[in-house]
Amino acid sequence: MEKTGGFDGNIELLRLTHTTQVRVRYGDTDAMGYVYYGNYPTFFEVGRNETMRALGFPYGRMENEGIMMPVVDMYVRYMTPSHYDDLLNVTTGILDLRGASIVFGYRITREADGATVVWGTTTLAFVDRETRKPIRPPQVLRDLLR
Amino acid sequence: MEKTGGFDGNIELLRLTHTTQVRVRYGDTDAMGYVYYGNYPTFFEVGRNETMRALGFPYGRMENEGIMMPVVDMYVRYMTPSHYDDLLNVTTGILDLRGASIVFGYRITREADGATVVWGTTTLAFVDRETRKPIRPPQVLRDLLR
Amino acid sequence: MEKTGGFDGNIELLRLTHTTQVRVRYGDTDAMGYVYYGNYPTFFEVGRNETMRALGFPYGRMENEGIMMPVVDMYVRYMTPSHYDDLLNVTTGILDLRGASIVFGYRITREADGATVVWGTTTLAFVDRETRKPIRPPQVLRDLLR
Amino acid sequence: MEKTGGFDGNIELLRLTHTTQVRVRYGDTDAMGYVYYGNYPTFFEVGRNETMRALGFPYGRMENEGIMMPVVDMYVRYMTPSHYDDLLNVTTGILDLRGASIVFGYRITREADGATVVWGTTTLAFVDRETRKPIRPPQVLRDLLR
Repeated sequence: MEKTGGFDGNIELLRLTHTTQVRVRYGDTDAMGYVYYGNYPTFFEVGRNETMRALGFPYGRMENEGIMMPVVDMYVRYMTPSHYDDLLNVTTGILDLRGASIVFGYRITREADGATVVWGTTTLAFVDRETRKPIRPPQVLRDLLR
Repeated sequence: MEKTGGFDGNIELLRLTHTTQVRVRYGDTDAMGYVYYGNYPTFFEVGRNETMRALGFPYGRMENEGIMMPVVDMYVRYMTPSHYDDLLNVTTGILDLRGASIVFGYRITREADGATVVWGTTTLAFVDRETRKPIRPPQVLRDLLR
Repeated sequence: MEKTGGFDGNIELLRLTHTTQVRVRYGDTDAMGYVYYGNYPTFFEVGRNETMRALGFPYGRMENEGIMMPVVDMYVRYMTPSHYDDLLNVTTGILDLRGASIVFGYRITREADGATVVWGTTTLAFVDRETRKPIRPPQVLRDLLR
Repeated sequence: MEKTGGFDGNIELLRLTHTTQVRVRYGDTDAMGYVYYGNYPTFFEVGRNETMRALGFPYGRMENEGIMMPVVDMYVRYMTPSHYDDLLNVTTGILDLRGASIVFGYRITREADGATVVWGTTTLAFVDRETRKPIRPPQVLRDLLR
């Protein structure tokens, strides 16, 4: 579990969780009839960005303030295939905030039957847009997680 | 034919043609078992960029020299489905160069049986990176097409 | 205008129009800072599918009933760049229904300023899933367009 | 290291390694000017499939023989950004083969400077196409790894 900071898909381990919905597009599927495994990182991005928006620091504003958040690592556990037109609930929360990085945890379930489709984590760094060096997270975020 | 400048997939209508190969990835396919219709513009991009590289003005260098080439319009005619692992020949050439824009024509055929998979055109503008205003094409390109 | 059946982005030329929203994802953008030109066909797909759902014949049900709708051609006119996090209104309607094919027209505008981002058309065929031969459109659709 | 079976990007830990090249497309990049983090799984797929082809059991043939290989989990470690037009070397090898699953390890380096761009792992299951139940890997593959 080292790579996922102890997260195993149980969203009770996350803080400041937020759920947003994604409808599976035809272009998301592959010849197996399932959502292509490489498309879930994009769904994580949607979940992460809607969570940041809900918490009051939308990612676009961070970029405008000179903060970039490149992804440092990602883990995805594929549980159940999803299909074209499935409505998915992307629940995202914060697993850890330390130094110049933040770990988000995700669980994606299918609206129709509640099945867990995938879960995973991403670690992102806070980086100064000009110097491209690591910086501390914004104070507002540190306060939220105190 | 107005939208395609008279091009109908016949590559003899194109100048400075160049052919490059693309292997269909699993992620390119959709639940129909075919390459998703929205992925062919990316194959056009590959063909266009390899053609520009072959002609001596790779797109990356143009951006470095302050020239952007946004796409103005695109037409795609889907002829035969292609599938996972198909090896595709992307033939690209120049249909027209006028004012501040260039029209590329494309034909994508399948290596295995020669079938035409799609053909199409894209019009791109030459734009100054700073002012974002239309500019004349590079002299080297105008010379090539004289 | 032949390739677009006379459509020039004016949605008053369309029938049974429906508008759905798409939020631009980070993964939709490219190094120019704009939405990549090859991603708009996916937004057309979203608009088309939500329109079909609203009209009572969702695409998934058509596939279940043995009808496939491969895309025959596509035209896209790029008007104004869109950016990360833009909220886009995808208005989709039917331009023509004839024989075994249907032409959808699209206009995508930006919520923030109403600018037209792109417009375009796609022609889709009605095809029998088993025989892969052209078939007439469903009666319900023909009735809607009478 | 549990999630990656001890792999840390050192390709000497892999067996039957194979290297293939991928050219970064404009559509692979994002507004940061880097390859979008969600596109590397597709590069892993290319590496994996070319490795399987080189070993004599191309993925397409496995599907034809009734074997599907859905991805069970994935880990990606992002080291250095890559950019439009970068030529990338995707080195893929087998980290483990056990029961009904196989673990691939990957390291992607940039041709120009040898920098490690990302490394990672994917676990795939062997599944019977009809029953969708786990099955043993093909004998040819077990022999190769003896």
